[in-house]
Amino acid sequence: MKKYVYLFTEGSAKMKNLLGGKGANLSEMTNIGLPVPRGFTVSTDVCTRYYADGEKIADDIQIQIDEALAKTEEIVGKKLGDKKNPFLVSVRSGAKVSMPGMMDTVLNLGLNDVVVEGLAELTGNAAFAYDSYRRFVMMFSDVVIGVDKSIFERKLDAIKDEKGVEFDNELTDDDMKEVLQAFKKLYKDEMGSEFPQDPKVQLAEAIKAVFRSWDNERAIIYRRINDIPGDIGTAVNVQEMVYGNMGDTSGTGVAFTRNPSTGDKMLMGEFLMNAQGEDVVAGVRTPKKISQLRETNKGIYDQFIKIAQDLEDHYHDMQDIEFTIEKGKLFILQTRNGKRTAQAALKIAVDLVNEGMLTKEEAIMKVDPKQLDAVLHPMFDTTALKNAKIVANGLPASPGAATGKVFFTAEDAAKAHENGEKEIILVRLETSPEDIEGMHVSKGILTARGGMTSHAAVVARGMGTCCVSGCSDIKIYEDKKYFLLNDGTKISEGEYISLDGSKGNVYASKLPTVEPEVTGDFATFMSWADEIRTLKVRTNADSPKDAKTAIKFGAEGIGLCRTEHMFFEADRIKAVREMILADNLEQREKALEKLLPMQRGDFEGIFEAMQGHPVTIRFLDPPLHEFLPTDEEDIKALAVDMNVTYESLKEKTEELHEFNPMMGHRGCRLSISYPEIAIMQTKAVIEAALNVNKKGMNVIPEIMIPLVGDVAELKFVKDLVVTTADKIISNSGVKLEYTVGTMIEIPRACLTADIIAKEAAFFSFGTNDLTQMTFGFSRDDAGKFLNDYYSKKIYESDPFAKLDQTGVGQLVKMACDLGRKARPNIKLGICGEHGGDPSSIDFCYRVGLDYVSCSPFRVPIARLAAAQSVIINR
Amino acid sequence: MKKYVYLFTEGSAKMKNLLGGKGANLSEMTNIGLPVPRGFTVSTDVCTRYYADGEKIADDIQIQIDEALAKTEEIVGKKLGDKKNPFLVSVRSGAKVSMPGMMDTVLNLGLNDVVVEGLAELTGNAAFAYDSYRRFVMMFSDVVIGVDKSIFERKLDAIKDEKGVEFDNELTDDDMKEVLQAFKKLYKDEMGSEFPQDPKVQLAEAIKAVFRSWDNERAIIYRRINDIPGDIGTAVNVQEMVYGNMGDTSGTGVAFTRNPSTGDKMLMGEFLMNAQGEDVVAGVRTPKKISQLRETNKGIYDQFIKIAQDLEDHYHDMQDIEFTIEKGKLFILQTRNGKRTAQAALKIAVDLVNEGMLTKEEAIMKVDPKQLDAVLHPMFDTTALKNAKIVANGLPASPGAATGKVFFTAEDAAKAHENGEKEIILVRLETSPEDIEGMHVSKGILTARGGMTSHAAVVARGMGTCCVSGCSDIKIYEDKKYFLLNDGTKISEGEYISLDGSKGNVYASKLPTVEPEVTGDFATFMSWADEIRTLKVRTNADSPKDAKTAIKFGAEGIGLCRTEHMFFEADRIKAVREMILADNLEQREKALEKLLPMQRGDFEGIFEAMQGHPVTIRFLDPPLHEFLPTDEEDIKALAVDMNVTYESLKEKTEELHEFNPMMGHRGCRLSISYPEIAIMQTKAVIEAALNVNKKGMNVIPEIMIPLVGDVAELKFVKDLVVTTADKIISNSGVKLEYTVGTMIEIPRACLTADIIAKEAAFFSFGTNDLTQMTFGFSRDDAGKFLNDYYSKKIYESDPFAKLDQTGVGQLVKMACDLGRKARPNIKLGICGEHGGDPSSIDFCYRVGLDYVSCSPFRVPIARLAAAQSVIINR
Repeated sequence: MKKYVYLFTEGSAKMKNLLGGKGANLSEMTNIGLPVPRGFTVSTDVCTRYYADGEKIADDIQIQIDEALAKTEEIVGKKLGDKKNPFLVSVRSGAKVSMPGMMDTVLNLGLNDVVVEGLAELTGNAAFAYDSYRRFVMMFSDVVIGVDKSIFERKLDAIKDEKGVEFDNELTDDDMKEVLQAFKKLYKDEMGSEFPQDPKVQLAEAIKAVFRSWDNERAIIYRRINDIPGDIGTAVNVQEMVYGNMGDTSGTGVAFTRNPSTGDKMLMGEFLMNAQGEDVVAGVRTPKKISQLRETNKGIYDQFIKIAQDLEDHYHDMQDIEFTIEKGKLFILQTRNGKRTAQAALKIAVDLVNEGMLTKEEAIMKVDPKQLDAVLHPMFDTTALKNAKIVANGLPASPGAATGKVFFTAEDAAKAHENGEKEIILVRLETSPEDIEGMHVSKGILTARGGMTSHAAVVARGMGTCCVSGCSDIKIYEDKKYFLLNDGTKISEGEYISLDGSKGNVYASKLPTVEPEVTGDFATFMSWADEIRTLKVRTNADSPKDAKTAIKFGAEGIGLCRTEHMFFEADRIKAVREMILADNLEQREKALEKLLPMQRGDFEGIFEAMQGHPVTIRFLDPPLHEFLPTDEEDIKALAVDMNVTYESLKEKTEELHEFNPMMGHRGCRLSISYPEIAIMQTKAVIEAALNVNKKGMNVIPEIMIPLVGDVAELKFVKDLVVTTADKIISNSGVKLEYTVGTMIEIPRACLTADIIAKEAAFFSFGTNDLTQMTFGFSRDDAGKFLNDYYSKKIYESDPFAKLDQTGVGQLVKMACDLGRKARPNIKLGICGEHGGDPSSIDFCYRVGLDYVSCSPFRVPIARLAAAQSVIINR
Repeated sequence: MKKYVYLFTEGSAKMKNLLGGKGANLSEMTNIGLPVPRGFTVSTDVCTRYYADGEKIADDIQIQIDEALAKTEEIVGKKLGDKKNPFLVSVRSGAKVSMPGMMDTVLNLGLNDVVVEGLAELTGNAAFAYDSYRRFVMMFSDVVIGVDKSIFERKLDAIKDEKGVEFDNELTDDDMKEVLQAFKKLYKDEMGSEFPQDPKVQLAEAIKAVFRSWDNERAIIYRRINDIPGDIGTAVNVQEMVYGNMGDTSGTGVAFTRNPSTGDKMLMGEFLMNAQGEDVVAGVRTPKKISQLRETNKGIYDQFIKIAQDLEDHYHDMQDIEFTIEKGKLFILQTRNGKRTAQAALKIAVDLVNEGMLTKEEAIMKVDPKQLDAVLHPMFDTTALKNAKIVANGLPASPGAATGKVFFTAEDAAKAHENGEKEIILVRLETSPEDIEGMHVSKGILTARGGMTSHAAVVARGMGTCCVSGCSDIKIYEDKKYFLLNDGTKISEGEYISLDGSKGNVYASKLPTVEPEVTGDFATFMSWADEIRTLKVRTNADSPKDAKTAIKFGAEGIGLCRTEHMFFEADRIKAVREMILADNLEQREKALEKLLPMQRGDFEGIFEAMQGHPVTIRFLDPPLHEFLPTDEEDIKALAVDMNVTYESLKEKTEELHEFNPMMGHRGCRLSISYPEIAIMQTKAVIEAALNVNKKGMNVIPEIMIPLVGDVAELKFVKDLVVTTADKIISNSGVKLEYTVGTMIEIPRACLTADIIAKEAAFFSFGTNDLTQMTFGFSRDDAGKFLNDYYSKKIYESDPFAKLDQTGVGQLVKMACDLGRKARPNIKLGICGEHGGDPSSIDFCYRVGLDYVSCSPFRVPIARLAAAQSVIINR
């Protein structure tokens, strides 16, 4: 028969999957002889069965729970429901991965009208007994039947008012009885039946409630944000209650074995005597520093210090420990690897290696790659932040902190910047490619619409600029240059706001920011990651500035240089528009002729910044109408500028209109209609490479043809490239190598990758578009329904943030396999947003890509994730 | 050594792939002893080599050509370039599939300044010799070096004017010499060199020119329209010239063994004495009926009658025969299965079976399924058509002919219809779903934008309404209610135009149409197809009217009933809009409540029309904004109507705006956000089924959830459907079976079809969307570049018209295999436009679908194509 329930004496730290983190650690501590209150763990398998059986605990499992309970009662020497010697338990969740505060807990279970009297007698403390019972009634009601705690709290406050007392402990025994009766009545009013008196019923209901809480809304959201799968379930720990509130020889506290903010090696924590854990959190009394425990009770202090050190030594990591002292006896309630800041994580990892506690590889596994983000971006000054009020909240689209004056159009932002304004926040309904210059000069970007992968979010992350997107709490009036907060507050052009792009918070004031220090630990730690990883890490960069940032962060090349981003700059958009509006080949070539030196200059700058590292240049990708204005005023202005009539320009823009621009006339389709574009871009790339190579570099440009779905498309454009390039090279008399490859971003390209590989020196997976097309939704529009998908448990995560390995991944793998079969030395990389996401990077490692490419600010994350993949997949 | 060149004595009719249709038939006729001018065929393999070798004839092949020429000269007893006994040849193309007039021909090859004198002497007819030579110069210049014929023709006309004669044969020998000199000068002026005198050079150049003509623009277009692959190449036939213009005992003619218009069994043809083939075509002299040949030359007539009958008997099909009489001797120049009208094709097929010439299966293979279209739609009266001028040309989007008064908005069309106007042509820039009612009342639809699969085209084909789309020859001013033709002619509301949806032609006048008769032969023929085929044929129908039409055409069920088409009708669009604009669940449910009885009524009507055949109902699919007006005036009117402010309505419509609606909030995503929609639709379907079953029918509704990309989506909506349906059924006390399945139209659904099949009783492939997403382009936007793709030989055919078997087909096959693995009895069908395309139907047969579903008017086409697939794949 399958074992579903484990006594703490039966488990170990290795059984996290089955017992959850908390349960496994309770077992581990029990078995190394630490003073842990006794109990048992109902395993995560039961959670799975619970849901599979239609939210029921099956009989075969109930029998095991009953047996474990009986054995525990025997060990403890108490009995659930026994008036003379009552066994009281806590019932707590505990998943494989810690999800603090997300799931439910029930304390003091086992109390009823009879037992409470026994407890009063046994402890000689009736107030304590009734207080414990009323807490139990409240928690049970909240957790098991969903009656909000606040109803009970209001009742308690009312009675305290009536009695004229301020604190709970001023209530008399009789007052406490009255509170209890009132709570029980509240339960009955809500449920229509009396509070359950049978402790076994209480236990069964509490266990089920904990399983149910696995799927409450906040847990689902937490899992999505933290990338925790939804099908692993939680365990339930049933544990003997110990009480820190049994008088002055009792107490409770928490401690970290090292400083979780700085990583400094020193025990750090707090405690309160005659109190329960909740009281520490409630903040009514101020807890004392852990060092003061020495004065209170030296014996306990020494015992605790030793245990803390033992636990750190045992787990080879900084521990977060909860303890209770019951009548002078120390109990360890929980230990876990402590949460810490990124800085602390790096310091601790490096220190533990230096202390000989960890190998470098073990240290690499101790830091969550995503956490590194925090050490790469500015942050708010923490004291200033304490007094700041969050006035709106949106999506944390691009990390970092920013403060500045608001502007409502990209032009206004650019103008302010020209006038010397340094602190600019661009506020838009949503951004579009035309806004690129205004975005560039801004410290932060705030949009009312658009998701984590909207234009604003993607571009901001690429630039390393702080961004809050999809902030529906604000109402923007762009034309009138102000926005309204939910409470009606109006914020106009030029007023200060601050954005926290890591949390999605908006503040209506100026908040000082601090540049985080990248300490020596960071460099040391990353060098270890580099020793281990095999995947190369490139960057997506469109300018020499981005390229330099990326190099600083350790990029080993450019995986995606989007040539169109250069097109938007003020000095060249005019030539781009002339090219688009040209009526014939001759006019178009003339306009392209103007663009050629600019593009060549851009490429020279990028090649120089990359110091000989490989650079993959993607040819023009977006539909041409993206370069034209859309609103009437702008069209009128452009008409004057271009010396054409408004009507003819309007007509032209309408001709270019597309129903679904994402699936329109773009990518290689442009070069097929207008070969002269590819020819100009080839000239710019090849001439730039020749120029910098003359200075002694050795650039080998990689030309990437986008949006290929059929080999004939690639072949057509490649022929243009090769013919043009070879002529320039042979005329120059200098040797130059270059390669031509393609972006794989259309399902059909994956399906026919063997045929395409015959013409492609490399594949770079454009998983943004590939995800859009494989799922059949546009990332700009998916924001409208993705939240419904999360709340209805259809998706666990955003497929644009985390690569969908089941569907999209299958296509990627297919393309890799087919591509290598046709061309064994084909170079394979990824340049979609997923290239900076750790779980996606692991996938890339497993399918055997040569490199990932991500925005400059994610390069260190990718380096670490790539190292972890090597270790995980060994 | 590989054989590349075949004497006519070496081939046979079976060698069509290698020798082309013409070459194979020339061999066949030679071998059964018919009088065929002697010659040889350069095979299609040479064409392939020609392109592979960089448009060259390789030496090894040239040797074989020279040998074949030498052997033929020996047999004929003449020599190329021999003045005394010159061998003159024709050089003609001949692909596997006949492409009449698409490729090039050179006649009289072998003539030069010396040989022409010999020919004059030999024939005693200098005018004939010079005329032949000047014709050769003209054809060679046109075909080999691309000088337009018209330049030569103008020169000839000028000389005739100068000489004061009307017809060529009035020119004297000297005049003819003068013409020849003038032509040779024209050649020299264009080429800068003398006309080539070496007959071997002439031959080599002519052969290359024919291969080149395989890839001329008109041939590429012809192949795309007729679904002929681009890589099979053409053969070249080099054949002894015979002359019908050598005096009164010579002549030329063509004949069909049966009437190609009606199919009647009677020899039908024309001839001219003392003439060449071109002269018959030129129409200067009126040809005589073939029966009159008996009077002219009874011997020849009897010989020809016998040969014609022999050829029909030999080929078991109606023959189209070309012959020449040279000085009293009959030569057969070509025979092929004659082109015929659809009516004739049906009659001939049935007659040949009745005559014992063909088996039913052979007869089934004799009719091109696409041809059937012509017998199902109205046509123009042929005499009226002769005098009508084509004023514009667009895409032949939906076949048939229509004449009527133009209207420029759907509302105007609907209003005119209400006022009793029967003949309405709707003219729009492009149509949108709002136009559906106006489209319904129109006889024909003309749009300036949009391709073969634009909204207008798809809907029109579904309705069987004639449509010309993408007609860029006209400029529409919808607001001013007129359009302009290229020549500036203005056509205003209420004026008559006529449309030919089979050819894409527009006429600026009223043209009478005739309803074609579907004769008994049609029914007989289709019954044979039904005996053979194994694929079921269903229809896409959204109304009882469509359903009835489809049943008449032999549909065996509805494969796709689009519920949203019902939403646009005037009496319900208001409730639909209320539903969309609802601020909360309650309001939304109230609006849905109003829609319920209407939808239920629709379904009752459809179930009754389908008489117990299966009906697949697709739940609401399009994004909701499609149901809202887009221009300001309409929004204002709606605001008044809905009793809300303009601003709030405008805001709501902007909120619903999508960047890429095709990939937006639609399909099952709607029911996930608004489960009440699926619940209402389930009620309507199930209640309707219960109601009609009470009348003694046995409807088993198939509920289809659209746009599923993940099994969790399907499961969520299916649960809503099943819960709702089972409750209604159990309350009714009556038994009702129903199934729930999904449309497979998203790549991810194909990739995960095994998981999805666990929840789906059936898959119906929505290959329109699947093609869009697999290729990554929207069919509404692809029109902008597909023409570039065709002209640059990147695509051979429109993937929306003909299923892309390499890419999309791979996904379909994958989904079928995975689906059947997970659920062996899963029902598989296709409901995209491809379900009515013969080559795609063949693919469906091969991957083992249970049925195809297409618009009512394509049902007979699908029935025939399905039968042919069985035979082809045996």
